[in-house]
Amino acid sequence: MGLFRAAGVVYKPVEQIDLGPASNEFYLQANVKAPRMAGFLVKIFAWFLESRIFGTLLLYILKRNNLIHKLVSNATLEESPMFVPLHPFVDLNEQEVEHIDSEASPPERVQHAINCLPLTLEKSLNDLKSSCFRRWTILDYSRAYNSGEITPRMVAERFIDAVRESYSHPLPMSFFINYDTEDILRQATESTLRYERGEPISALDGVPIAIKDEIDCSPYPTTGGTKWLHKVRPCKGDACCVMRLRSCGAIIVGKTNMHELGAGTSGINPHYGAARNPYDPNKITGGSSSGSAAVVSAGLCPVALGVDGGGSVRMPASLCGVVGFKPTFGRIPHSGVLPLNWTVGMVGILAGTLEDAFIVYAAINGQLPSNQPTTLPPKVYFPLLNSTNLISDIKFARYGEWFNDCSDEIRICCSNALHLLCERYKWKTVEVTIPEIEAMRLAHYMTIGSECSTSLSSHLEKLDFAELGWDARVALSVYGAFNGKEYLKAQKIRNRQMQIHNNIFAKADIIVAPTTGVTAYSIFDDALKTGELDYINGAALVRYQIAGNFLGLPAVTVPVGYDKAGLPIGLQFIGKPWSEPTLMHIAFAMQALCISDYRKPKIFYNLLT
Amino acid sequence: MGLFRAAGVVYKPVEQIDLGPASNEFYLQANVKAPRMAGFLVKIFAWFLESRIFGTLLLYILKRNNLIHKLVSNATLEESPMFVPLHPFVDLNEQEVEHIDSEASPPERVQHAINCLPLTLEKSLNDLKSSCFRRWTILDYSRAYNSGEITPRMVAERFIDAVRESYSHPLPMSFFINYDTEDILRQATESTLRYERGEPISALDGVPIAIKDEIDCSPYPTTGGTKWLHKVRPCKGDACCVMRLRSCGAIIVGKTNMHELGAGTSGINPHYGAARNPYDPNKITGGSSSGSAAVVSAGLCPVALGVDGGGSVRMPASLCGVVGFKPTFGRIPHSGVLPLNWTVGMVGILAGTLEDAFIVYAAINGQLPSNQPTTLPPKVYFPLLNSTNLISDIKFARYGEWFNDCSDEIRICCSNALHLLCERYKWKTVEVTIPEIEAMRLAHYMTIGSECSTSLSSHLEKLDFAELGWDARVALSVYGAFNGKEYLKAQKIRNRQMQIHNNIFAKADIIVAPTTGVTAYSIFDDALKTGELDYINGAALVRYQIAGNFLGLPAVTVPVGYDKAGLPIGLQFIGKPWSEPTLMHIAFAMQALCISDYRKPKIFYNLLT
Repeated sequence: MGLFRAAGVVYKPVEQIDLGPASNEFYLQANVKAPRMAGFLVKIFAWFLESRIFGTLLLYILKRNNLIHKLVSNATLEESPMFVPLHPFVDLNEQEVEHIDSEASPPERVQHAINCLPLTLEKSLNDLKSSCFRRWTILDYSRAYNSGEITPRMVAERFIDAVRESYSHPLPMSFFINYDTEDILRQATESTLRYERGEPISALDGVPIAIKDEIDCSPYPTTGGTKWLHKVRPCKGDACCVMRLRSCGAIIVGKTNMHELGAGTSGINPHYGAARNPYDPNKITGGSSSGSAAVVSAGLCPVALGVDGGGSVRMPASLCGVVGFKPTFGRIPHSGVLPLNWTVGMVGILAGTLEDAFIVYAAINGQLPSNQPTTLPPKVYFPLLNSTNLISDIKFARYGEWFNDCSDEIRICCSNALHLLCERYKWKTVEVTIPEIEAMRLAHYMTIGSECSTSLSSHLEKLDFAELGWDARVALSVYGAFNGKEYLKAQKIRNRQMQIHNNIFAKADIIVAPTTGVTAYSIFDDALKTGELDYINGAALVRYQIAGNFLGLPAVTVPVGYDKAGLPIGLQFIGKPWSEPTLMHIAFAMQALCISDYRKPKIFYNLLT
Repeated sequence: MGLFRAAGVVYKPVEQIDLGPASNEFYLQANVKAPRMAGFLVKIFAWFLESRIFGTLLLYILKRNNLIHKLVSNATLEESPMFVPLHPFVDLNEQEVEHIDSEASPPERVQHAINCLPLTLEKSLNDLKSSCFRRWTILDYSRAYNSGEITPRMVAERFIDAVRESYSHPLPMSFFINYDTEDILRQATESTLRYERGEPISALDGVPIAIKDEIDCSPYPTTGGTKWLHKVRPCKGDACCVMRLRSCGAIIVGKTNMHELGAGTSGINPHYGAARNPYDPNKITGGSSSGSAAVVSAGLCPVALGVDGGGSVRMPASLCGVVGFKPTFGRIPHSGVLPLNWTVGMVGILAGTLEDAFIVYAAINGQLPSNQPTTLPPKVYFPLLNSTNLISDIKFARYGEWFNDCSDEIRICCSNALHLLCERYKWKTVEVTIPEIEAMRLAHYMTIGSECSTSLSSHLEKLDFAELGWDARVALSVYGAFNGKEYLKAQKIRNRQMQIHNNIFAKADIIVAPTTGVTAYSIFDDALKTGELDYINGAALVRYQIAGNFLGLPAVTVPVGYDKAGLPIGLQFIGKPWSEPTLMHIAFAMQALCISDYRKPKIFYNLLT
């Protein structure tokens, strides 16, 4: 107080902001001033940050250069803090949905979800794979098992062979942090017996599903991508979402690789290897749910679970050419997920198709953490994806300057996809202005950083820092650098952005944007041991993610094309709170227009035929 | 990180804590290591705290000596943060309550509340005042106005004379920061005309009510006890609670004195004078709602509004011998109240009797701030205080070591009162252990401090510090000293304590304790200009307040006796979330056993006869 202070923005009242296309609110590109660092440079940087005197100074400069002081810490705004993006339930009267019993068991919900899917004629698997590329789906597995063409045990054996093979490449794929062949075969054998008895539990029975190593899952430790966290925090059993999948008969095939502590977006893990993109193993998968995206992309599982605290499900899904779905904050219980943050993270689903994401969503959604004020929707709606009626009158909000702040190829591909969708279904696009996106990105960063740092603080006290990767050390230094006022200012910005987004949702049903600003970029050798700091590419990856986490909005990414190098491009739809059914309808419609052009990744395993 | 860290407590899981009387959890007395400071010493202390180098060091030492590092900042605990103590509504199936229409207008609610009160025979006012001392109540005013014995205009004139007189004492009472005689007389004249027409709006019509200067109220500035805040934050109209009182016809008689920024508990304000205790003008009123307690105690108003962020309603009510009532967090809209904090403060009511607190509560309760996840009770219950049935089977939780951590006179007086109550109604006392009360006090302090500091930050930037009182400068220096991790740790403790209290409430209906650990202490001359730092007396005052604020629980203090110096003593009841009706029943029963012994303050004004 009374000392030198960087001047802060004075934000005007939300009701005075013009959200129309001709608004004088300007789009501020992320002002990332940091060169790419890897190898020795990252080490030097970490050492400086961790020294008391230099660290304080360096952090001050970093915060100032990245406009944290100006846009958040010293900003003036009227809003009170919004701490948790938990929205009161509003019955949205969505079209083409079906109300289901909220007391239904996970297997019953799975069956209910399947009843909402379009009927596919019972073709033989060979017929299906003939025309264009597509990954095998949950229903493909289910039909094959039911017909006796193949057994879960056979799939499990092929899975194990495939994973082994993936590590023998010159560029090892590093899909998993842990997988236990005995445990997999045991589950597969039990499932096979159920099919033999004619008593499969659900369509998920015998379907291989992988779990991000941030989610508790017996018999594995939960490493969070580290070499130490599982030692100080032993895994005591299945997370709630895993338990539900297991109760449907799914085979849990192991714990997928992830960015260490979720504290980065590349998916390069110095301890367990850089997860590599099945479309080009020289490229990143994106993160932090890197392995979960890669195993789905490579055909090892139709579905995997991830956790999305800052786009960590949607980014790798987009970069690996699969569907990524993050439901509304509070839809899926967080119990048994590493508490790397408390107010932005959510379990998310990575799947080859929207239908499979829906089936798994049906199995795992429902119930809130009990110690939060509960505003759990009293009703559960599923989208009727088999309806022949189109949803009428969908309006997409598109903020041109933001939408276009990506590579040319992404911009063109996403614009074309959106155009096609609107034309096909007579839906409309409304041009809008969403102000202060960069302030929201910074406020989200300060929030997830402070929460991660607090959550780990008692462990970090006792930790030998040599056990941490270098890029994680840098991240943790910055994460711990925010004071109480800065954390609270960030929560004031959360409230403000929620009001702004509510106003946008008064103009349109869905916000549409590319999923990422760049496609998968290269993994360089100097990053393999130290990790990499690449805040410019990082900012381009998270550019479109933040509202989903900071405001708790449901969001889904659908593959809509490829760049010239053959790397996948995703288009993202962001919905109102609790609007998952409409969001799925739209994503499903988008997928239907694109799926025939899907391409096979370079690394692909066919476990079914 | 990696530097020297004070060791932190490792808290065990809540389910392993024995909350019974023989628990091995120990009671930690507040470890306040700070001498009383006033005058020049406070100035020196403020200067040191505000210097960059010495301040950092001094704050570190203060935090360490007060066990903040050990009990909060560096503590290890499993709980996730609970940011806002907003409880999901649970229908408690309380006894002797009546369900009222939640859409009813404030005057309708007032009438409904009056219907729930015991019938008092229509005695003349002279009869009523004969036997023992009691303050005039809302119904006394209403009856007198209706009978034509006196008019609101006459009461207003007497009020104005009395306030003038109170400032001419050798020890000026400093009740108000602002009162506008013209505005008072205008309202009184309008009310008088309504009675003349036989059309009073409600029983509150013409009743003088004072408002703490932390609550917006036309035509006054909202100073928050400062010389500057109203200049940078102009008052734009009535707060919601004031608007509701006005809609019932109440005469708003001015803005009462308060501790500067609510940042202290003595009520000594260097700008507007030390509010003085009507029972002994040499003593403090307690704070921060100092003037509101004093005006009710001195008979100037039957009711006044305060704001309770850390006992700020209950402490001065207890010290001034009146009822103080803080409802469940979220019961009364906070709109138009200075945002000095966001998660602990609540409008509260100070009144001469429980009945009057209830009538005003009826007028102002209902509706939540719209930007919070709403868990507003769908039903509104009022206690049937006129019921001839006793509530059966009330169980009080009493934590002996905590209950007894007060002066001997308070302990004996409160124990006797509780004993009397249990004997009279065959209610029971259950001995319990409430662990970690001191950790909760510190966590609450860190929370209210961080929030206050953040809320004022953009104003403080531009402020000449000479405009702040010296004790407020010290408070603000400490308030700004917590980092994001410390704020979050405090919220983890909030969740933990909520669980502990839920477990206590599984054993008993109401927690009972004295309201304060000391009675009103002396105002020394050296404190008048600089304010005073007296953390030992401060800790004794707030000792029993924190659960009400930090956990959002409803709480009420009832006068139950006097110490040898004739200073009032209060007994406090703390209820489950949303249990106001039961709480009022119990407080009413307690009052009924004590009211005949109520004593007249040395400074007392009789406006009615």
